[in-house]
Amino acid sequence: MKKESAIKQIKETLGPQGWSNDPDIMAPLLTDSEGGPQGNALILACPANTEEVSTVLQLCHQANIPVVPQGGNTGCCGGAIPNQTGTEVLLSLRRMNRIRDLDSTDYTLTAEAGCILHDLKHAAEEANRFFPLSLGAEGSCQIGGNLATNAGGINVLNYGNTRDLVLGLEVVLPDGTLWNGLRRLRKDNSGYDLKHLFIGSEGTLGIITAVTLKLFPLPHTSVTSCCALSNLESGLSLLAIAREYSGDQVNSFELLPRIAMEMIAKHRNDLRLPFPSDEAQWYVLMELNSSRKNDDLAALTETILEEAFTKNMITNAIIAQSEQQRNQLWSIREAAVEVQKSEGYSVSHDVAVPVSKVAELIKLTCERASELLPGIRPYPFGHVGDGNIHFNFFKPDDMTDIDFKGLTSKIHTLVYETVNELNGSISAEHGIGRAKTDELEIYRSAIEISLMKAVKETIDPSYLMNPGKVINQKT
Amino acid sequence: MKKESAIKQIKETLGPQGWSNDPDIMAPLLTDSEGGPQGNALILACPANTEEVSTVLQLCHQANIPVVPQGGNTGCCGGAIPNQTGTEVLLSLRRMNRIRDLDSTDYTLTAEAGCILHDLKHAAEEANRFFPLSLGAEGSCQIGGNLATNAGGINVLNYGNTRDLVLGLEVVLPDGTLWNGLRRLRKDNSGYDLKHLFIGSEGTLGIITAVTLKLFPLPHTSVTSCCALSNLESGLSLLAIAREYSGDQVNSFELLPRIAMEMIAKHRNDLRLPFPSDEAQWYVLMELNSSRKNDDLAALTETILEEAFTKNMITNAIIAQSEQQRNQLWSIREAAVEVQKSEGYSVSHDVAVPVSKVAELIKLTCERASELLPGIRPYPFGHVGDGNIHFNFFKPDDMTDIDFKGLTSKIHTLVYETVNELNGSISAEHGIGRAKTDELEIYRSAIEISLMKAVKETIDPSYLMNPGKVINQKT
Repeated sequence: MKKESAIKQIKETLGPQGWSNDPDIMAPLLTDSEGGPQGNALILACPANTEEVSTVLQLCHQANIPVVPQGGNTGCCGGAIPNQTGTEVLLSLRRMNRIRDLDSTDYTLTAEAGCILHDLKHAAEEANRFFPLSLGAEGSCQIGGNLATNAGGINVLNYGNTRDLVLGLEVVLPDGTLWNGLRRLRKDNSGYDLKHLFIGSEGTLGIITAVTLKLFPLPHTSVTSCCALSNLESGLSLLAIAREYSGDQVNSFELLPRIAMEMIAKHRNDLRLPFPSDEAQWYVLMELNSSRKNDDLAALTETILEEAFTKNMITNAIIAQSEQQRNQLWSIREAAVEVQKSEGYSVSHDVAVPVSKVAELIKLTCERASELLPGIRPYPFGHVGDGNIHFNFFKPDDMTDIDFKGLTSKIHTLVYETVNELNGSISAEHGIGRAKTDELEIYRSAIEISLMKAVKETIDPSYLMNPGKVINQKT
Repeated sequence: MKKESAIKQIKETLGPQGWSNDPDIMAPLLTDSEGGPQGNALILACPANTEEVSTVLQLCHQANIPVVPQGGNTGCCGGAIPNQTGTEVLLSLRRMNRIRDLDSTDYTLTAEAGCILHDLKHAAEEANRFFPLSLGAEGSCQIGGNLATNAGGINVLNYGNTRDLVLGLEVVLPDGTLWNGLRRLRKDNSGYDLKHLFIGSEGTLGIITAVTLKLFPLPHTSVTSCCALSNLESGLSLLAIAREYSGDQVNSFELLPRIAMEMIAKHRNDLRLPFPSDEAQWYVLMELNSSRKNDDLAALTETILEEAFTKNMITNAIIAQSEQQRNQLWSIREAAVEVQKSEGYSVSHDVAVPVSKVAELIKLTCERASELLPGIRPYPFGHVGDGNIHFNFFKPDDMTDIDFKGLTSKIHTLVYETVNELNGSISAEHGIGRAKTDELEIYRSAIEISLMKAVKETIDPSYLMNPGKVINQKT
């Protein structure tokens, strides 16, 4: 089939509401939140249902047109952005935003891929249930994108990554065939578990159109605390005892470095820091939650923190005594992300190591970065309870942005080499997208890359699904 | 390479302790716990380490010899039994039983595939940690077999299936290549998640030689109760509120039918039933656990059961007041499996439906079975909290075993058709093995079967790994 004819049929299938080539409408969809290279697209396709997705993929398959699926476009690695050639179809799932089913006895919810995460969480709450996935972009990211990237966030410790929250998937394969795997079973050992192939594959094996998710009891109580750590290692010991003492109900355990407190003090005088910013080098924000009625998590948190004091793990701590104080603590955590933009250009990484190796990762990386560039300002923060550090770097005060940017790839290499030494991952929760495909080939073994390529070529032999993302095409 | 030469080299590689063709040694490994058809093997290979597994697979690959991996041989579907031709190598992992690492800060344990589940659990406990996988065969099953079949058991409700407990795998691929995916990361979004392909693939894609597992805080308290249900539906409502009220700490929720109580009364007069066997039609054994110190789970259980009484979900209940009483309740659950052997031949199934559909599954299946054979005695029991029912049938009192056996395939069809109507699974936790490959092709969609075959042929194009299991070879 000729490309022109396929595009004509796509337009007919989707109807006037279902496609666009208006540059104003397309512009915000052609670059991602990190401001990576601007893309271009043949057409924006917005199918209204699974059948339309299937037809679009079938037509593109017949005409050899690549397809780039996109959710809420909140990614950080360019995974949902078409390349610059203008030869790809950009397929947005945003019109597919229905909740198909919510069963509170089953603790399950079935929704289309374009549902906004916040809306799903809200629907669950209305039914006295909890969908735990929680991340900064939840007001605009879509569950389909969360699935495609196996999103992480701040509740992984107790509830798992997106992958762990899935019971079933509906997927349109690269040739337009529909796989209906929307089962809502807690146990199912009938053959290979195909859903895990698609989750985290960033749209390179097909398009997830719907999902059945696990729900949980709605927490009635959350108690948030902030601790000044004696040192990094003791933070990890604190987590270990907190898991024990709490009945494994630590949902968040987030690291904040002194530099974050200092930047917040500098840029956000509307916020009150829990401690003077020079109280310690490292802080953690810890939250326990529980669906038990009248569960005294405050007393439990006190017990944990007393034990931590006694064992010299922490030097100071506060426990939020009200919802307002809890929100204040979380505002600090959110500000630790936002203030970085006020501070200027940074070189960023999203890495993971075993939880017990986090202190070593931070120490080694900071030492090596200082050797490379004396005065460099490391800014490691984030989901330390998962061993996941957002490891960013700011330039020395007396350096120009241009000179610092020139060191970007050296800093990347330094971080990834250190992560690799500690048997870690160069992408903990953001995925590979188009930003890290070369690094993936370096830091995964040859056999692993060849298995991934074999899977890719089995399911998408023509490399039509989100080409150039995750897996480099064989040359 | 000639087969004779490959076998000779395998013997040399493994040394005199590492192989056998003694019929007495091999006999117990050639039939499974369900007494399926007896197999035969060219040789029993017992490699002592990963390198030896790799060499054996490489030699077999070169000489085109099929390989059947075997763990503790406690499976129910013939998945670890060679066929009758005597042309396959039976590869036992039993000598690979070392624990390589246990890190209590990471809450992880790395072990070889041949470790016995009980030994892993014990090692974790010694380090004040908990490995939750628990099933009847835990004294002899091996973790490699648990991984190959994605084993379930009695703690899935709160901790997940075996799949959910895995952080990393080491796998020898069909041509002998080693994939070292033994990462111990809580977050890792760097490319396709290959480990989930191998977990649950029953040795048809390669041999899992080692695993890194998640550990959990060791529970300090467990409170077990037994309830007489008003009806089946109310059992599921009880579970829903128990999850809410307990802070989602229900680890077991097991169904026992009246027929089980009656058979236990008949065959096991050493055991004391919690209620007269005619107290109700259905009973559940519920257990909460917690790693909190001094956690008053008994009071919590009382609150849950009071609520259940008030809402007419249950008619009677007892809470175990001592470890001895707790053991007595669990003895009843275990006896519900054992007494079936005393009662005689049964037609058995291991099926799952959505939790909210269990009552409908049981009602429909019992009705249809009675239509097929008036007087048939259904015996549905097990992991109702996971929607997983072991749905067995005994003959009417006045029928011969031979006549009843003649109906086996009709009963299978009746059960699987009903499960399929309710969007369930024909194998919840036992896997497919060689017993259910034909049923898999019937009850999974054509596209799903073709995806599975495509994956199989990508990784094992010559069908040398555990042939005839899970996936039927294309003809």
